[in-house]
Order: sequence, then structure tokens, then C-alpha cells
Amino acid sequence: MNFASDNAYAAHPAVMGALNDANSGAMMGYGADPVTARAQEAIREVLEAPEAVVRFVSTGTAANALVCAQLSPPYGRIYCHDDAHIETSECAAPEFFSHGAKLVTLPGQGGKLDPATLAQALRVGAGAGLNGGKSAMVSITNATEWGTVYSPAEVAALAQIAHQAGLPLHMDGARFANAVAHLGCSAEDLTWRAGVDALCFGGTKNGAMAAEAVVFFDPALAEGFDYRRKQSGHVFSKNRYLAAQMLALASDGLWRDLAARANAHAQVLAYAVLEGGGTLLQPVQSNAVFATIPADIHARARAAGALYYLWPDKSAEGLDPVPLRLVCAWDTPEADVAALAAILRG
Amino acid sequence: MNFASDNAYAAHPAVMGALNDANSGAMMGYGADPVTARAQEAIREVLEAPEAVVRFVSTGTAANALVCAQLSPPYGRIYCHDDAHIETSECAAPEFFSHGAKLVTLPGQGGKLDPATLAQALRVGAGAGLNGGKSAMVSITNATEWGTVYSPAEVAALAQIAHQAGLPLHMDGARFANAVAHLGCSAEDLTWRAGVDALCFGGTKNGAMAAEAVVFFDPALAEGFDYRRKQSGHVFSKNRYLAAQMLALASDGLWRDLAARANAHAQVLAYAVLEGGGTLLQPVQSNAVFATIPADIHARARAAGALYYLWPDKSAEGLDPVPLRLVCAWDTPEADVAALAAILRG
Amino acid sequence: MNFASDNAYAAHPAVMGALNDANSGAMMGYGADPVTARAQEAIREVLEAPEAVVRFVSTGTAANALVCAQLSPPYGRIYCHDDAHIETSECAAPEFFSHGAKLVTLPGQGGKLDPATLAQALRVGAGAGLNGGKSAMVSITNATEWGTVYSPAEVAALAQIAHQAGLPLHMDGARFANAVAHLGCSAEDLTWRAGVDALCFGGTKNGAMAAEAVVFFDPALAEGFDYRRKQSGHVFSKNRYLAAQMLALASDGLWRDLAARANAHAQVLAYAVLEGGGTLLQPVQSNAVFATIPADIHARARAAGALYYLWPDKSAEGLDPVPLRLVCAWDTPEADVAALAAILRG
Amino acid sequence: MNFASDNAYAAHPAVMGALNDANSGAMMGYGADPVTARAQEAIREVLEAPEAVVRFVSTGTAANALVCAQLSPPYGRIYCHDDAHIETSECAAPEFFSHGAKLVTLPGQGGKLDPATLAQALRVGAGAGLNGGKSAMVSITNATEWGTVYSPAEVAALAQIAHQAGLPLHMDGARFANAVAHLGCSAEDLTWRAGVDALCFGGTKNGAMAAEAVVFFDPALAEGFDYRRKQSGHVFSKNRYLAAQMLALASDGLWRDLAARANAHAQVLAYAVLEGGGTLLQPVQSNAVFATIPADIHARARAAGALYYLWPDKSAEGLDPVPLRLVCAWDTPEADVAALAAILRG
Repeated sequence: MNFASDNAYAAHPAVMGALNDANSGAMMGYGADPVTARAQEAIREVLEAPEAVVRFVSTGTAANALVCAQLSPPYGRIYCHDDAHIETSECAAPEFFSHGAKLVTLPGQGGKLDPATLAQALRVGAGAGLNGGKSAMVSITNATEWGTVYSPAEVAALAQIAHQAGLPLHMDGARFANAVAHLGCSAEDLTWRAGVDALCFGGTKNGAMAAEAVVFFDPALAEGFDYRRKQSGHVFSKNRYLAAQMLALASDGLWRDLAARANAHAQVLAYAVLEGGGTLLQPVQSNAVFATIPADIHARARAAGALYYLWPDKSAEGLDPVPLRLVCAWDTPEADVAALAAILRG
Repeated sequence: MNFASDNAYAAHPAVMGALNDANSGAMMGYGADPVTARAQEAIREVLEAPEAVVRFVSTGTAANALVCAQLSPPYGRIYCHDDAHIETSECAAPEFFSHGAKLVTLPGQGGKLDPATLAQALRVGAGAGLNGGKSAMVSITNATEWGTVYSPAEVAALAQIAHQAGLPLHMDGARFANAVAHLGCSAEDLTWRAGVDALCFGGTKNGAMAAEAVVFFDPALAEGFDYRRKQSGHVFSKNRYLAAQMLALASDGLWRDLAARANAHAQVLAYAVLEGGGTLLQPVQSNAVFATIPADIHARARAAGALYYLWPDKSAEGLDPVPLRLVCAWDTPEADVAALAAILRG
Repeated sequence: MNFASDNAYAAHPAVMGALNDANSGAMMGYGADPVTARAQEAIREVLEAPEAVVRFVSTGTAANALVCAQLSPPYGRIYCHDDAHIETSECAAPEFFSHGAKLVTLPGQGGKLDPATLAQALRVGAGAGLNGGKSAMVSITNATEWGTVYSPAEVAALAQIAHQAGLPLHMDGARFANAVAHLGCSAEDLTWRAGVDALCFGGTKNGAMAAEAVVFFDPALAEGFDYRRKQSGHVFSKNRYLAAQMLALASDGLWRDLAARANAHAQVLAYAVLEGGGTLLQPVQSNAVFATIPADIHARARAAGALYYLWPDKSAEGLDPVPLRLVCAWDTPEADVAALAAILRG
Repeated sequence: MNFASDNAYAAHPAVMGALNDANSGAMMGYGADPVTARAQEAIREVLEAPEAVVRFVSTGTAANALVCAQLSPPYGRIYCHDDAHIETSECAAPEFFSHGAKLVTLPGQGGKLDPATLAQALRVGAGAGLNGGKSAMVSITNATEWGTVYSPAEVAALAQIAHQAGLPLHMDGARFANAVAHLGCSAEDLTWRAGVDALCFGGTKNGAMAAEAVVFFDPALAEGFDYRRKQSGHVFSKNRYLAAQMLALASDGLWRDLAARANAHAQVLAYAVLEGGGTLLQPVQSNAVFATIPADIHARARAAGALYYLWPDKSAEGLDPVPLRLVCAWDTPEADVAALAAILRG
């Protein structure tokens, strides 16, 4: 019973099928192949963004850090949430790729930046001078690191503030599909229509082996981006195999269906937590549950072989109730969800 | 008929099979899965290097540049051939990853460094002082960018010179399998027994989708390497899919068999070139043929749909004879090889 | 009446005299001159550190950032106070020089790290894994950005915690002289005897034109440091002019005398603030006063031509009382100090 | 008798005088002082470039590397001569500051790029693709590393080729004054009128202690440059002391007079070399003589205490004739010049 992470799970059969389809004979390398072209077009269609520049990379860290380097100079200030993945979980990749950009982290309920906090930070940043660096971009994560989701209106409010300061808005969408599935909105409503300038559209956590799409809605923002990918070792010579994965996910709404399934699993667990006397630390709006549960229930879950992380870290072991994170994937076995839910209910 | 590059070709069925095998259920991420462990062990067995540190990345540029950053400080001098892939074809990735290391490039017949040239360069480098930077490492490619191969004795001669200067020796083995297949030696004879300290063992050009192994024969040299991979976005969360590819290649000598097949194709073409009045620009020792052919034969090959690069670039178009490069892969169709050979014979 | 910053003030006549003394005829460049040798020795004597490696650079940002790059890999975590100069005022120079190191900032009263907070942060850092990076060093500022001073015992407590975690301790001593002058201790008591591994010994704010000494108490920590200086453009070809400045300050205790004078000015102002009904935001232990004063007194000071910064920034204009920072230098005219003090007394 | 380097010599009394003049009381820091404003204006007047952006830094390496980072992205190709200072003598600072730019070095007589070679290299670069990087800028040195000088027409020919390829032209003018003094032209004729976009105008080798001016003739090219200076530790808080040095040199043509004096010394030595049976390896057009002299004359010069470097390095010791470099400064004693000349005449 693995609830440790959605990246602990497998690739969807349709992804494997697409890889097999792509695996025939010679195609020109470095993205000049028909699979890549089709996958780029498929992503543009999902986003209703016919002009967007779409590129594929193999990890979320690469996707985010490349966008940071693209949108921020070395002396730039990148505004994000205190708990943003780019701050906490990418080993300072944004600083490495950008050659020094400073992440200015901001507090916010439920892992979400709020407009007033951002606006105030941008005012301070505008006066930071040489000492503080130059404001360069705003980055949000949707779904967030706390499993919550920004609505299109919330994204738009942040985008407006960023744009008024002359800054582009980046969305780390490692779990973008989960956010869309939760909201029931369209992909474009949550991105360019709301003012998002660059999107990292995650595949890895949602049924791919290792594939993410980087999308620039304004092609002018993508100038030179391919060189950055190449210089950081993120251009695949056999690019068709990256592209095929995203092509499969983008086809027939698979990306949304898989996310909806993972989200549904999380809802089951959330209710079970509450029934068992636990509390939800955040609204459950995607595929992760942040909760506290009674220590005896935790002990029973562990005894039953359930894998999950205590949160924020293992120093929580021994507390009662126990804070933890449960993450579901598209292919978390329903039996596992049911079994854990039964334990959680007490 | 694609002879443009070996990376234009597909993944081997055994690789696809290994991916399918790996694609079942949940496994812990970031390399803490059993497939990764087995693949690392398989590479160590191929190299008869039970203590070696083995890591997987998805591109050759990443593999090489990460090793450069690992073995050279920002102010380091990296000695390599004028035509080394790290110099000509990686968009300055070694400089980017290392934060400034200087590639000191040296001439040499057939794409190979020769000991006297290297020794002299290291003497100059030893006196380069603050202005010139600090000698840090030596890098060779085997098989080389000109399709030639260093023998174990040739590698050992260079390693000895490097080691006497206190420098480690890196081997870019994007086509390592082709070199071993040509030489008929063991993998260890061509690497650690000859003094190689770090090896990039290529899979992508030899039947993988996108997978390379980075090998440090002395674990002390690998200190902190995982952080470098992570910070540059080259740690896969679902690492099993990288590992599975190399596991397939490392099993039952597949890596060697596939390379031997590609090499054999190249031999067929090389003889055909000579029969048709062309000349070989380099000895054909791996899977690439560098040659000149009469212009009329070139015209017939193009008319028959043969794809290949003029060499060093398309400015050679219109010359007679025409210099070109023909690259074969494990799965270049035999019919294509035969058809092109027939044309080349005139 | 300039109380804006100590770097608004001039160079001491002895510094100018030393520059004139050094300005005769030819000397070998890049530090191979007798002035440099004498200045290095003078700093070692001040610190009672005969084995220390001493190098001169021209700015405090360079000194700090070079030490960070020396002691932290690109994937390192550098622990410092929320308000550390390296975090707030160096335009991400540590990230730039180190190629990505993450500054982990910690709260603390009066601009000072406290041992329990540091110890807890290091425990978290030890479990940060690849995502969070590798703990690399601890950096403190003495005197702090809030004008307070760490005692030798306080430094030792932090050093012990750092060392137990295997990390070196860096002291940003842009106002080191002010700290020593306040404490009445020896320079060695506040540095290596207390466990400091690397010191940036400031000259610029204390009577030099532009000169800082970087000191590594353990020569092994300085390995390759000269290359870093060179590669970042911080090796002066005519190094004697950097060295002469520090030689003058290090001679006959001038560095301490000048700092004591600046500190004394600050004490005068601090008492005046209190007499006038203002409050001190921090204990006044060096040459800066952080205080609030009644708005009418502020208005009179401005009318009298007093220059100083509102704190933390000009958004404080209009408040009553007004928070501000007053900084004194060795050559702030006594008449100016007296005049401002009179106004502050109300 | 020091002919080792022009940076072995002292600062001019007028420079010291300007420093003393600047050394009075409080001035706002970071360049917001009147000395800086006057010095910037003086440089603009020297160059007849009223719109130019002028900034001061303390070393030539910083000046050049900052311009490289300003004009080239990390994936850029910087075209320069094989013997350019940025390639041979700056410890890979351009790569470090730019975060990876590749120096594409080109051969050329007398240390000078020739137009045909440059044009051909730019054609190759235009086809370099992702593998080779993106052409970003052209850099020349005037006077060159071989003591020769580009005329305005020669500069214009290179500028035209660079601009046709869309690239800016940088001039490393560490010895710009020597070039102007030799040519008898105006500073503007040799720079913006000839198409130079960015100039590093050297002071250190020509009577300053440590000061260089960076000049962007088109202010648009300077966007963000101050942040780069700050982030690399090259913003002086007491900027007046950098500025005062350049102000003194720029006043009353002092920069040109000092360079003319150094050049004249070199002419004396050049004739003496020829009279003594030596040969000039390059035309003597600035303040350095590259020559060979009979071994017995070399022995006598050494016995008389003459300091100079064998060229390209000390491995030339023992040759007959002996290749060497003699560099003169504005304050090389005339008696020393006469004494060495007497020896050289045999």
C-alpha cells in the first residue's frame, strides 16, 4: 500500500503503447520527428493555444528551473510561496540554472500566494535596488504543494498584479491535471486566459514514465530556450520517446481522466480520516491528503504495510495525533485505497 | 535509407521489454527501487568493477557535463581533443555545469589525443598560473568522433600521463560499446585496468531510448555527484525506467552484440566506398564511415533517398569528390546497407 | 550631517600615507610585492594567527561571496540570519559565486543567530536529502546588521554546533573592528579561538578606500582560493595598493582606534535618543543606532540637514514615532554628532 | 630595471592628487557622488560620446568579463583571437561571468583578427545549431596582446562584419591609450565611429592604481549592467576612489600623454634590438616589444638586472637567439631604458 508519492506509480498502458508505436525505424533526431510535432500540436490543442511554443523535458525540476532561467536574469528576484517546490525540493536548481537568481518566498494559506501579500512584496522589491536585485517573475504551483488548487479567478488576480509590475507569471503544473480535474474548468481557463505566461504541464506524476511539457504562450518568451535545454543536457536526441508519452496523455482527455481518478482516491481517504477522528490540515482538492490521525490508527496503518510520509518530516513520529501526507496516483489500487480507508475510519 | 546518425534509430525490443517489465505497480522513487539496483549491479558486472558507483542519466551531454563538473572546479582546465564532443557538440554544457571550466583542446590524428601532445600541454598547463587556470582533468572519447578507437594500451599511455600530473581521466563512451566490439577486448581492459577514472557508458546510440550510465571506478570521486544530478534536473523520480533500459543492454552481452552489428554495417559500406573509387578519411573502427566519394555516386545515393551528412558541413556540397559521414545503427536495415553499398560501388 | 552609512565617509590619512609610500617605482604584480607581504603579516599578527592565509579584495560583497563559493558547493546550504548582509544586500552574490548555493535564513533576536535555532535547522538540513541540498557552512555577521555584537562565548557556542555538524563557520566582519572595540577583547578571542574558520575583516567601512582582508585560519580551507579571486576579477595586478590600505589599518591598532571612535559617536546619539523620548530598537554595541524618535524631532533633524535612512525603508515616513538608522564613522565630525544629539534630545 | 609588465609600475602623481582631492568628508556611496559624475562626464568627453553609459571597475578582467556576460547569453559564442587576453589570461572569467559562453578563438597575424577569417567563422557559427551555440559577440583587443594596433579602418571592417551578423563588437582596451597615442587618431575614431559597441578603457596599466572604465555607446546595451557589477562584487561603496583615478587620467589628455611616453620607450628599445642584431617578432606599435636577441646580449641584460619575460614562456631559456617581451610604462625610468638599450645594441 504505497501512498508515499504519485511518482512511485507506473506508466499508463496508453503511454507504453505510444512508446511502442513510436519505436519503429529511423526518424531524424533532436525533435525533428513526426511524433514530436504531433505531441506539440496535441498539447496546443489541449490548451487551446495554437501559437504556444511547446517543448518536452524529462523531469519537473528541469522544466521549472529552465523556465526560471529563461524568465529571470542572474540578478533576478523570483517570487514564490514559502513551500514552493522550486524552493524546497529542487536542490536549488533554479539558482543553478539561472546563475544566481534569488527566490523571494512568501507566506500564504494552504500553499497559495495571496494577492495582497504578493502586491506588497512587489512593492518592496521595486525598491530593493542593486542590493536586493531586480524583480523578474512570479511563480505559483497548481495544484499546490499542500494539495489545494487555485481557481481561474485566483490565478487571474495574481497574474494581474504580476503583469502590472511588468513580470511574467509561471505556473508549476506538476499536478496541473489534478487541478483542472478538480475545478472542472478548461485548461485554457486556468492558464493563458487567466494570465499565465509559462506553464510546466506535468506528465510524470500522472501516468508518464518521465515527461513534462514546457509551454510558453507568447513565443517571444521562448527565444533561445532550446539552447538552454541543450546546454543543460535536456535535449533528447531521440526526442520521439519523450513526445510520445505526452502525446498519449494529451489524447482523448487521458491526462484529465487519470487525474480525476487519483483525485477521487484522495477524496475517499479524506472522508475516512474525518470519520476516524482525524483532521484535514488542508482542503483536499487534488490527489493528496494532508491530515492528522490518531496515533493508534497510524500504528495500525503502518502494521498493515501502508507507506506514507509523516509531515513535514519524520520528527513527527511519536506525536498523537500524527500529521501525515497521503498521495494517490491514477493506478493506486482501489483495494489499497479501500483497505487504508477502512483503517483510517478506526 | 537513414545514415545520418545512430540516434535516428529505435530502441531494441529487449529494452522495450524491460520497460514493460518495470512498469508494474508502485516502487519507491529517485532510484530506491529494485530495477535500479539490478541495473547498477549489471553495469558493475559488465565492467568487472564491483566497487564502482553507477548512476543513470538520460542524455550523453548530461553524462559528460556532470562528470566535468564533478572532476573540475570552475577554474579548471579540461584537456581534450579539438574535435571532442564536449567541445564541439554540447552547447558549452561542460562550461555551464562546471561554472566556467576551460576546455583546452589539442590536435591529434584521427580524433585521438597522442601522449606527447598531452604531456606537452600538461607541462604548459602546470605553468599557467592564475591567468590560465588549474589543470583539472583529461577527457577522451572512445570510439572517437572520427570513428576511430583507442586500444587499451593507448588509453593506458594517456592515463599514465594524466595521473602523473595528478589528473583523473574521463572517457566519453557514447559509443563505448562500438569500441569494445571492435577491439574484442573486455570492458574492464578498456577502462579501469587502463586507468580510466570515470566512464560515460552510452546506451542511447546503441539500442536504448534515452539512457546513459555514469561510472566512477573510485567511489571517492563520486562524492556529492547525486546532488549535482538533482540540481541539474537529471534525477528521475521514476528512475526504474532509466535503469531498465541499461539493464536490458547490460544483460547477456546485448550492448556488445548490437554494437558489433552496427560496426559490421560500417565495414560493408567502407569496402563499398573503396571499390567505388572513394577514399576513407579515417580507419573504420566503429559504426561510422568518414569518406570521400565521387560526386556522381553521391548524386545517385541522394536520388535513391540516402540520408547522410556531408562533412564537416553542407558547404561541401558541390565538391568532387564529396566528403561525408555515414553512420550505422544496430537496426539499420540490412537491405538499406546493401542498397547503399551497391550505389557506392559505382 | 551624514549619518546614512559608514561607507559615506573618507579614508584615514594614514591610509593615504601608506598608499603614497607604496607608490614608488616598479614592483612585481599580482601580490608578489613586499607591501602585500607586510600587510598579510600585519593581519596575521593582529589575529595572532601565524599560519593563516590572508588575501585582499576590494569589496565586502566580493569577500563574503568568495568565501561562500570556497566553502559551499553549488548544491550547498548556507545557514545565516534572516537579515544577514549576504541575504539582503549583496544582490545574490553568494548564489552567483557558488553557482547556486541556497541561503537558509533563520530568525534571531537582534540580528543574531541563537544556538538552539541553528541546531534545529542543522537537524532539519541533515535530513534534507537531494531535494534540499547538502549542509555546507554557517555564516554570522559581527557586528550584526542591527548593530549588536556576538561575544566570544556566543561565537563559540555557534561554532561548536556548526563543527559538530561538520560545517565551517564564516564571520562576515565588515564591522569586525567595531565588534572588537566594543567587547574590549582580542581579535583572536573573537575569531579562531572561538572557532571561526574564515573571517572577512573589513577595512572599507573603517577608514580604508576599498579594502577587505579574507582570512582562512586553516590553510587547507584556502586551497584554490586565489583562482576564485582571479576568475571573478578580484585579483589586482597592482595589489600593493589594496595591501597598503590594510597595512595602515593593521598598524599600531589603528583599526581598533577608528572603530572605537565611531562606536563612541553612536553612544552619544543613543543617549540623546533616550533623553528625547525615543526608544532604542536594539542595544547599541557598535557604530549604528536603530531607534524610533518622535516625528517632530525627526522633522527638526531633517530641517537641520541630517541625512539618515528610515528603517527598514522609506515607507516609515509619516509614522510617529519614526523608526530610523543612524550610522557613525571614524570621521563623522564631532560637531555633527553634537548637533544631531542636541536635536534628538528635543 | 623592470620591463616585465606595465602593471609593475606606479600610479601617476595626478592620480594620487585626485584621490587626495576626493578624500574629504562624507559623500553618498555606490556612485551617487559628484566625483563619479565628473569622471563619467570626463570619459564621455574624451570619447565624444555624450550618450554613453560609463561605469568604473577595478580590474581589467572584471571589465572584460562583465561585458561578455552582458552581451552573451550562457549559450553564446564569443569570437576572439587565439591570443586574446580573455582567452589566455583571465582564468576563464568570461565563462564564469556569462555562465558558460564559449570562446571561439581564431588565428590572425600579429594578434589581430582579420576580416576574412572572422566572416568565415561567423558563417560557420550561423550553422552551429544547438550543438554549437548561438553567435553572440565579437571581441578584439586594441592595442593587441602582441603590441600591434588596429587602425580605425581595420576596426570598422571587423565591426561591419559583426554587425551584418547581428553581433555587437567589444574592444578590450586595457592598452587603448597606447593604441590611440600610436595612431594619432581621436578616441571616437577608434571606437564608436568605427563601430565599437562596448569599450573597456584601461587605466591600471597607464598610471592608475586600479581603475578601468566600461563604456557602452548605446545605453540600451547597458540594461541591467549595474546589477551584474553588484552581483559580482564590483560595485564600490566608496566609488569616488575608483572614479577619481579615471578622472585624473581623462583630464587634460593625461591618458594619452602617459601612453605616448610608454610607447616612446618601446621605440627606443626596438631600435636597439635591431642595432644589436636582434629581430622584431611584431611591429612595435604600442608599449611592448616582442623580439629575439642574441643569447649573449640576453645574458648581459640579465646580469645587469633587467627583468623581463621570455616569450611565450621560460622554456625559451637556453635558446639562441632568445625570444622575449619587453614592456614599458609611463614611469619606466629613462635611465633604465637607456641602460637596457645600450646592452641590446651589443
